[in-house]
Amino acid sequence: MSSRRIVSGMRPTGKLHLGHFHGVLANWLEMQKQYNCFFFAADWHSMTTEYADTAGIRDSIHDMVLDWLAFGIDPEKSTIFCQSAVHQHAELNLILSMITPVSWLERNPTYKEMQDNLSAKDLSTFGFLGYPVLMAADIILYRATKVPVGHDQLPHLEITREITRRFNHLYGEVFPEPTALLTESPKVLGLDGRKMSKSYGNAIFLSETAEETRKKVLSMVTDTQRVRRSDAGEPDSCVAWSLNRQYLPAVQQEEICAACRTAAIGCVDCKKVQAQALIDALAPFRAKREELTAVPSMVSEILAAGAVKAAQHAAATMLDVREALKV
Amino acid sequence: MSSRRIVSGMRPTGKLHLGHFHGVLANWLEMQKQYNCFFFAADWHSMTTEYADTAGIRDSIHDMVLDWLAFGIDPEKSTIFCQSAVHQHAELNLILSMITPVSWLERNPTYKEMQDNLSAKDLSTFGFLGYPVLMAADIILYRATKVPVGHDQLPHLEITREITRRFNHLYGEVFPEPTALLTESPKVLGLDGRKMSKSYGNAIFLSETAEETRKKVLSMVTDTQRVRRSDAGEPDSCVAWSLNRQYLPAVQQEEICAACRTAAIGCVDCKKVQAQALIDALAPFRAKREELTAVPSMVSEILAAGAVKAAQHAAATMLDVREALKV
Repeated sequence: MSSRRIVSGMRPTGKLHLGHFHGVLANWLEMQKQYNCFFFAADWHSMTTEYADTAGIRDSIHDMVLDWLAFGIDPEKSTIFCQSAVHQHAELNLILSMITPVSWLERNPTYKEMQDNLSAKDLSTFGFLGYPVLMAADIILYRATKVPVGHDQLPHLEITREITRRFNHLYGEVFPEPTALLTESPKVLGLDGRKMSKSYGNAIFLSETAEETRKKVLSMVTDTQRVRRSDAGEPDSCVAWSLNRQYLPAVQQEEICAACRTAAIGCVDCKKVQAQALIDALAPFRAKREELTAVPSMVSEILAAGAVKAAQHAAATMLDVREALKV
Repeated sequence: MSSRRIVSGMRPTGKLHLGHFHGVLANWLEMQKQYNCFFFAADWHSMTTEYADTAGIRDSIHDMVLDWLAFGIDPEKSTIFCQSAVHQHAELNLILSMITPVSWLERNPTYKEMQDNLSAKDLSTFGFLGYPVLMAADIILYRATKVPVGHDQLPHLEITREITRRFNHLYGEVFPEPTALLTESPKVLGLDGRKMSKSYGNAIFLSETAEETRKKVLSMVTDTQRVRRSDAGEPDSCVAWSLNRQYLPAVQQEEICAACRTAAIGCVDCKKVQAQALIDALAPFRAKREELTAVPSMVSEILAAGAVKAAQHAAATMLDVREALKV
């Protein structure tokens, strides 16, 4: 089993939206079938950028993990835990910091980029500079062989691989060198046509009601070239369609495309159909979320049990690390 | 008691010599009488510079702690432990890294200095840059109010105080701001007149035999201006005298000074007297060291018990830290 081990973390951002579902969780669900998976809430990583206001982190973890569980991430199959609950992440991070050249971190392409993107925050901290070291610790602590990443995250994984090689070179072959499991993350458009994102206020959340979702879908931008009801539309240019077509059966998709291109159906009626399809698709997840919410301690119990399981693996790794380091 | 709490660590350098005795341990012995003391072997700190060769660290800890105990550092009075055995050091280090600007570390005066001094080692690592963060964690984890430092270490403590203020400012008053307990560390000269240091090969160790000590004292440089036996000497210029005079009673010191200045006593005879005085002074420590060595597991048992005690304090602090951070 350990030869097919995957580690993947998500920063606790609170309630998840459809972008997360199609971007990360759909992949996690697939991996869960084939691999021994460790999925964790990366709260230490949150602190690298949110250190000045940590008030929301605890609730964000709760809401996020509730969505994971509702989506089908299964604590019977995968180890689900919170990073900060397993102290070995911090310990291995400290050890790896000793062998990581500062220059590897400074040349990390996203380091300057994120500092620029989040220029309202002071990210000139030691912890922010060092987050690739922490990421390396997170991964190799469980001797992961595969790490799901998108193309844009490959440079991060490369630092993890470099640190792993350096450790093995200095102290002996303790860790497998993790490789990338390249995942597809389709760009999910939000209500206004920009990338779906909580901060843009254009997202549809699993945790909202069916009626809220319907209202949001009805407010979605469609094909901006179709000005009048009598104009023919182009589904390939329609924002709403880009998000929702996947929830309709193929035959119905073809019918609607034809009707749109001949102005046989108007955008409002079309979006009513789309909304219902989306609502139907989300219904089982929402039911499951309801069910989980009914037991308020559920999430914390699952995280506690997951932390115990994760810590067993982490402790075993750290024994080997100590033996190799001779400290 | 907690209002008079001291934390002090020593890098495991192996067997201790008279330089350590007069430089650090004499101060520790005094503090032990007045304060609640936490004395630790700073093995993580060793790794900041010795990461490429960690083979000797474990034995160095054992030999060093054996000398502490022989000198009178008392596990009944003080908490004696190894840094890496208390995982909260790594955890608090990670948390403090999030709020510490890289610039504070780069302007640390000893950072460039040590890189220059130890130019044979590659000290461009993230861990080496961050050792003041780890040092801050070591100190405030036990809510120390006082930290014994020499004048040259004041800049380090200043970083600790800055990090502490920043933490309290961001998250509430969790930590007292530790202040310096300025300690005198007389410069102890070695056999050749340079500062006593293991790496210079000019040191006298507690762990050697009386006969080895006698041989070393007899080989010591004296007053280099006194070329012939019949020349008058000057005790103030005598290397051997500088080290050993303190072990002789005041009256005998005066007699010897007079005899040296009138060439009434030769250097060899004088050093025989000095050697015996030093040997007599060290005798009780050596006897104690013998006694401790007779129980091979003694040091590891004391360190294990100390780690349990230290971890209790550390865990209590971390509960407050988590509460303040809300993670």
